[in-house]
Amino acid sequence: MRTIALLLEYDGTRYAGWQAQANALAIQSVVERALAKLLGEKKIRVKGSGRTDSGVHAEGQVCSFTTNKNLPLSAFFPGLNPHLPAEIRVLDAQEKDENFDPQRSAIRKRYTYRIVNRQGGTALLRARAWQVYAPLDWEKMARAAEAFVGEHDFAAFQGPRASVKTTVRRIEEVDVHPHGALHLLSFTGSGFLRGQVRSMVGTLVAVGKGDLPEDRPAALLEKPDRKGVGPTAPACGLTLDWVDYGEGPWIAPGGRIF
Amino acid sequence: MRTIALLLEYDGTRYAGWQAQANALAIQSVVERALAKLLGEKKIRVKGSGRTDSGVHAEGQVCSFTTNKNLPLSAFFPGLNPHLPAEIRVLDAQEKDENFDPQRSAIRKRYTYRIVNRQGGTALLRARAWQVYAPLDWEKMARAAEAFVGEHDFAAFQGPRASVKTTVRRIEEVDVHPHGALHLLSFTGSGFLRGQVRSMVGTLVAVGKGDLPEDRPAALLEKPDRKGVGPTAPACGLTLDWVDYGEGPWIAPGGRIF
Repeated sequence: MRTIALLLEYDGTRYAGWQAQANALAIQSVVERALAKLLGEKKIRVKGSGRTDSGVHAEGQVCSFTTNKNLPLSAFFPGLNPHLPAEIRVLDAQEKDENFDPQRSAIRKRYTYRIVNRQGGTALLRARAWQVYAPLDWEKMARAAEAFVGEHDFAAFQGPRASVKTTVRRIEEVDVHPHGALHLLSFTGSGFLRGQVRSMVGTLVAVGKGDLPEDRPAALLEKPDRKGVGPTAPACGLTLDWVDYGEGPWIAPGGRIF
Repeated sequence: MRTIALLLEYDGTRYAGWQAQANALAIQSVVERALAKLLGEKKIRVKGSGRTDSGVHAEGQVCSFTTNKNLPLSAFFPGLNPHLPAEIRVLDAQEKDENFDPQRSAIRKRYTYRIVNRQGGTALLRARAWQVYAPLDWEKMARAAEAFVGEHDFAAFQGPRASVKTTVRRIEEVDVHPHGALHLLSFTGSGFLRGQVRSMVGTLVAVGKGDLPEDRPAALLEKPDRKGVGPTAPACGLTLDWVDYGEGPWIAPGGRIF
């Protein structure tokens, strides 16, 4: 039995997130159907590195599946792309050993959240970024974001309907940098709770608006309180950049896009 | 009579270009209708800095109109935005003197063409960039592009159905630079012929693929021949970045997006 991993980019705008669902179209289901057709199987089950919520994007989601079929890797990359909608692209394919698990084998991930912060908003990045019209104090936000680095109990930043054994996670790096009116907030860590990045970003934006004090993120890590966070940032601004399985970030041959 | 200029961003994907047309929806018509409604006039006529073709985007298109109404500038920026579809944003508004003409007063413009050059293409930038799957020799393309700088007869690079007095134009700067797999080709000049940027880019890509010799752009400026150019690059990759009316590029307060 072969284990094959795929590197996926997707525009999550019109999808109900990564995970297959009964009554809405998920990225996972679309990939599974395309693979089943390609392999001539009734059903192929793919496993993702983690779910992304409805509307969230990926530049480097990873999924894997097993098959007995003897197709060359090129049948999956680039071969699968003509069988997928333009919103989903396979960017690479690799043969993995049988112990590979896209979620449990991951040692770190990076998410980037995009905010366009100007009075006019944006037409071109409207599906990719949160449009914040009011001025934000970005220096204050960058200082406040430093509190997230390290191993902390992120219980306050966990989305609703989550159930995990522990809410302790380790964030290795937080990077807040502007490209004109477009601001990128990147979070690298061993793993993230459901809704964590959007809740952290929403809290930072509340700090940047002056609605919450600069030390609020630090205080919420010290003493978790779900009621102390800012409004959750919208899904459209969030992108899963890459997953690292111990050999560095798995990115597309040819390089990433901006 | 007041002359008011607007700075516009738009996602041209679903529109028939800038210029109003009988049987298709143009950006100009949408802006005119929104203004007429806001001003309580039967018809408002706006003039653009130039047309953009169907599917072409703008980060900094400029248009102007005249009115007797005494509304403050804030009625247009940001006041007009709630009356426009999300694909069109007003980014700024300025009062101009009566001699202002968005096309004739412009002293320079910049266009940027985006290419995602990797085997997997791109989902997230599919409406904003040309997906070129085959490897391109970018160093060769950058060298070939230098030929465009200066004052030349660009007749070979003029699109069909164009009729102008002279096909001589001056390009001040060509900049070709990569951000991973995303390559940006920027052209700054006093003015451009219809279809010129897309024809220049298509010819450079043909050079990068090895389909045309590196000195072809230079040869076509020396001796114009429409049959010598490469296939025209698709509209989706092209964006009008800004127009300069003598005080530097007019960009959005708060900065540009990437």
